Amino acid sequence: MINITFPDGSVRSYEQGVTGLQIAESISPALARSVLACGVNGETVELNRPIMEDAQVELYKWDDEQGKHTFWHTSAHLLAEALQELYPGIQFGFGPAVENGFFYDVLLKDGESIKESDFPKIEAKMKELASKKEPVVRKEVAKADALKEFAAAGQTYKCEHIEQDLEDGTITTYTQGAFTDLCRGPHLMNTGEIKAIKLTNVAGAFWRGDATRHQMQRLYGVSFPKKKMLDEYLVMLEEAKKRDHRKIGKEMELFMFSENVGKGLPIWLPKGTELRLLLQEHLRKVQKRFGYKEVITPHIGSKNLYVTSGHYAHYGKDSFQPIHTPEEDEEYMLKPMNCPHHCEIFAWKPRSYRDLPLRIAEFGTVYRYEQSGELHGLTRVRSFTQDDAHIFCRPDQVKQEFLNVMDIIGIVLKAFGFNFEAQISLRDPNDHEKYVGTDEDWALAEKAIVEACEEKGLHAKVEYGEAAFYGPKLDFMIKDAIGRRWQLGTIQVDYNLPKRFKLEYTDEDNQKKTPVMVHRAPFGSLERFTAVLIEHTSGHFPLWLTPDQVAILPLSEKYNDYAKEVAKMMQDGGVRPTIDLRNEKLGRKIRDNELKRIPYMVIVGEKEQADRTVAVRPQGGGEQKVMTIEDFIAHINAEVDEMTKDF
Amino acid sequence: MINITFPDGSVRSYEQGVTGLQIAESISPALARSVLACGVNGETVELNRPIMEDAQVELYKWDDEQGKHTFWHTSAHLLAEALQELYPGIQFGFGPAVENGFFYDVLLKDGESIKESDFPKIEAKMKELASKKEPVVRKEVAKADALKEFAAAGQTYKCEHIEQDLEDGTITTYTQGAFTDLCRGPHLMNTGEIKAIKLTNVAGAFWRGDATRHQMQRLYGVSFPKKKMLDEYLVMLEEAKKRDHRKIGKEMELFMFSENVGKGLPIWLPKGTELRLLLQEHLRKVQKRFGYKEVITPHIGSKNLYVTSGHYAHYGKDSFQPIHTPEEDEEYMLKPMNCPHHCEIFAWKPRSYRDLPLRIAEFGTVYRYEQSGELHGLTRVRSFTQDDAHIFCRPDQVKQEFLNVMDIIGIVLKAFGFNFEAQISLRDPNDHEKYVGTDEDWALAEKAIVEACEEKGLHAKVEYGEAAFYGPKLDFMIKDAIGRRWQLGTIQVDYNLPKRFKLEYTDEDNQKKTPVMVHRAPFGSLERFTAVLIEHTSGHFPLWLTPDQVAILPLSEKYNDYAKEVAKMMQDGGVRPTIDLRNEKLGRKIRDNELKRIPYMVIVGEKEQADRTVAVRPQGGGEQKVMTIEDFIAHINAEVDEMTKDF
Repeated sequence: MINITFPDGSVRSYEQGVTGLQIAESISPALARSVLACGVNGETVELNRPIMEDAQVELYKWDDEQGKHTFWHTSAHLLAEALQELYPGIQFGFGPAVENGFFYDVLLKDGESIKESDFPKIEAKMKELASKKEPVVRKEVAKADALKEFAAAGQTYKCEHIEQDLEDGTITTYTQGAFTDLCRGPHLMNTGEIKAIKLTNVAGAFWRGDATRHQMQRLYGVSFPKKKMLDEYLVMLEEAKKRDHRKIGKEMELFMFSENVGKGLPIWLPKGTELRLLLQEHLRKVQKRFGYKEVITPHIGSKNLYVTSGHYAHYGKDSFQPIHTPEEDEEYMLKPMNCPHHCEIFAWKPRSYRDLPLRIAEFGTVYRYEQSGELHGLTRVRSFTQDDAHIFCRPDQVKQEFLNVMDIIGIVLKAFGFNFEAQISLRDPNDHEKYVGTDEDWALAEKAIVEACEEKGLHAKVEYGEAAFYGPKLDFMIKDAIGRRWQLGTIQVDYNLPKRFKLEYTDEDNQKKTPVMVHRAPFGSLERFTAVLIEHTSGHFPLWLTPDQVAILPLSEKYNDYAKEVAKMMQDGGVRPTIDLRNEKLGRKIRDNELKRIPYMVIVGEKEQADRTVAVRPQGGGEQKVMTIEDFIAHINAEVDEMTKDF
Repeated sequence: MINITFPDGSVRSYEQGVTGLQIAESISPALARSVLACGVNGETVELNRPIMEDAQVELYKWDDEQGKHTFWHTSAHLLAEALQELYPGIQFGFGPAVENGFFYDVLLKDGESIKESDFPKIEAKMKELASKKEPVVRKEVAKADALKEFAAAGQTYKCEHIEQDLEDGTITTYTQGAFTDLCRGPHLMNTGEIKAIKLTNVAGAFWRGDATRHQMQRLYGVSFPKKKMLDEYLVMLEEAKKRDHRKIGKEMELFMFSENVGKGLPIWLPKGTELRLLLQEHLRKVQKRFGYKEVITPHIGSKNLYVTSGHYAHYGKDSFQPIHTPEEDEEYMLKPMNCPHHCEIFAWKPRSYRDLPLRIAEFGTVYRYEQSGELHGLTRVRSFTQDDAHIFCRPDQVKQEFLNVMDIIGIVLKAFGFNFEAQISLRDPNDHEKYVGTDEDWALAEKAIVEACEEKGLHAKVEYGEAAFYGPKLDFMIKDAIGRRWQLGTIQVDYNLPKRFKLEYTDEDNQKKTPVMVHRAPFGSLERFTAVLIEHTSGHFPLWLTPDQVAILPLSEKYNDYAKEVAKMMQDGGVRPTIDLRNEKLGRKIRDNELKRIPYMVIVGEKEQADRTVAVRPQGGGEQKVMTIEDFIAHINAEVDEMTKDF
């Protein structure tokens, strides 16, 4: 008999050679039906792999990343199996699972190629093969035998991969029906689990990503265990396309990129800047209440500063390279992190226990080099501004600071209608060696985080072994309007930097002690948060936040002066108006301003000018209402007051 | 007879060979008494130099830079003359006039040196020599003869200078009494004008600034035509020392520098950040009223962007060097200017004449490399944030935009009690070739600036030939509380960048046209303005702007909780309080908080806690007054409202 330990710490005995599936069956038939793969001592394996000794076991379902990954990996093989039948002589490159599905790189013979119009045929073949419920069989083979087998099948890329990349000894292949692939696995037990399939894209891709080698075709697809899930996914995809923050950002003139300025460097246009300043002001107001002190530090720092902090070792080679100066022997770096600057502020003068917690906040811009192919709108950029803060405190203050940050995040995110989930990342309980900081400190901080979450009634998922080497952390995820999860804010304990910077304070007992440092960022970054907010709201920002609250549309140019006067009154009254002075028909003006997602349009013509009123049209249509200018201003301000009264 | 043209355009006839002094005498005896040097066709010369043909002539007095410069240059010679008498065998290096006086580099024989305690003796000798009213005589000599003369006098540095730096042909010397110097002049007619002398400093200086050569001594001094002026200057110097923004910035914890982060890179501490954000908010509010749109652009840009703009050619070699990336062939620069980014924003979408003027504003940080020896507090730094804006407009809109910017500057500076002076820099009327842009455009813009100043009743000094090659400009100078002039804001027309970036708009006639660009910055930079403001106010900022408006001082630790409650009420009431919770005597707390220049201190003890009041003590002492917390908050808010009602 062997002992199987589950994630909740419970232990059960099984016969040696038990499989993941048998373990699932022993727990419940429902679990056995939905389980997709299994984790044995941290390694994901097939459900039919025998377990030969005591082990930590996790059972992965669709909602687990490992479950999805296994499912999509087998789907990639199913795609290849179908292509092999449809296109004899096809050459295969790599075919992995990716974040939202899978792909396979292929090369058809005789310069043929796959087009989008071929997708239905391929999908049909995949479904036909899946319906056969073919078992996926793992085999260990000698490298020489594998090479022989793939050479016989005419798979030259597979052969090159075996020869150049794989160590001598045994390697594994997976076979389903007539298709065998070189693969480390793991896979589903059979292809019959794959009930719904959609090919999503075909693009060019170089073999091994090397532009000097063959250009192959990369076929992307996604698959699900239920047809309904695919349908929902396709609706979500369609919806996501409409909400793409890059598209809406352009329509609303929020931000731009310029190849001349540089790829991945966001430029905030006037309306985006207004939005960003309002977001900053929102957080600023809340965190000021919690005793945070704002600072402004330069965007660069001496290279030595990052050598001290350890960031240079971590980011140095792969990031923007050092800046030299013309005369003196100095090297500067674009800052990859704000922490070292804040450590210098702490170190600026002697600190006493009375000064702690010292909470230093900054809207601090950092720079990380990303390959141009990886850049994506505001979510993957080369410079971004964190709503950063560093709390320097005593070990016994960590819990209260976590409670405070959770309050701040709660207040800040509520303003956008977001709910959040959390994940606690703790040490690997089996290996304390790889972490910086004493056992007592870690135990104290880990306990503080868990207790803080409990006190706030936050059901946080606990992940062991996911802590950074320098301290445990708490991550926040939000779910947007179409169900997507986004990682945003984080709270991170750090025992490393205070040591590296030799920070100290004088404690009550007159001893010099090292403070604990806590990093935190509720939004994560203003760029990322703005992107998420655009996609969550489709650009229909809440009234208190939207850059233009009102569009004033004069019926014709005759009323432009009155429109300007109304705008001035609104501005003086604390409302943010824009005017459409173009010589266009009203219908056109309304259409164009709808696209700009402005909550209210007010129309002014002969009668409104004479009566000093405005005709108010809410976004999306609805009943038009005539009001005095003063009443309208009061109405907007009341609406904003009502929605912001709790934060 | 020759015609002499004066700066106001008037012309008078004089006999050929007339001197500056004779011209002054012909105008008024008072002028003749106060004139120090004379400008002939733009060159400054001695008052006794004969003028041989028609010329533009200016007469320089003490208040003219050229007058002061001549006075101090002769003072440097007077210093050398005195030293030659006092220290036989002394070697002379260079001895020029500088911004606030003059210096002479010298080397005594046998390793002797001059100490501060020797200053009275040297000053006395200078006065003794000056009282002889020795004429300063200019002589043209052949290079070979000059070399012989200085070699005979044992002046090895002068000989090296003649041999290595001077062209063959005639060179000039100036002689007074027994002292002759190699010099291009000009000088006073005699040393008797120098009535008041003060040696201010002695420091080490390498010959030719070359650390591998001899270390000499540099003697600094200042001199005046009247004793009273020296007395005032010394008082001002003492006062300036007390107001040094570096000292006050530390006492008030406004900003810091860290060698680890990098020299010349200001870090704004919490109180400085509060101040800076208030300054930004102040300007933001005013410029929003004038239709400015704020943007945020990255602190870096592709090197090519600055090649396009021409900034790379101008700043490239002498500034921070390009940033390389690890994989792609890209080069980035820390931005030396914000303009190219704003040009890219203009170019982002098609613009029509209806969109103009487009006013793009940014608190934009720029980076300029300065040698570490040149750095000085916040006034000479390596990164600074301009309150920048670029107005893109039609040529016929330039004047109105100047009027608007002048209004903005007026409103903004009035808030600090500053008065400003202005200087208009126009083209060199004799050389239109060296400027970019058409003659009509220049004429239009120059006229617009002059007219705008007239309309605003601003008596601006007009300087011909001082315009940048790309457009005329208007500079603003303010005079601080101790009479020092500081250059702050500027408005600059630019015909160059819009062409380089090929910017265009569609005009009313449907033609594509190039917009005019106007740069402007009322503060200049937030760093510089903050420094000036600190030195102007001695850190006693106006109540609306000061980071801490009130210091709450509990009489003992027993009242700390009440103090915190009072602080919370103030914060909620829109007042910015700080609390001194230290376990110190009240007297000590008052003294320490006086140093922090906090306008109000409120003291809370037994009685105040019982009555829910505070005992208010204004900065600098004065009558203490007990008020309810609510009344005190209302009082502060009313005071702020009263002082900010006009801006």
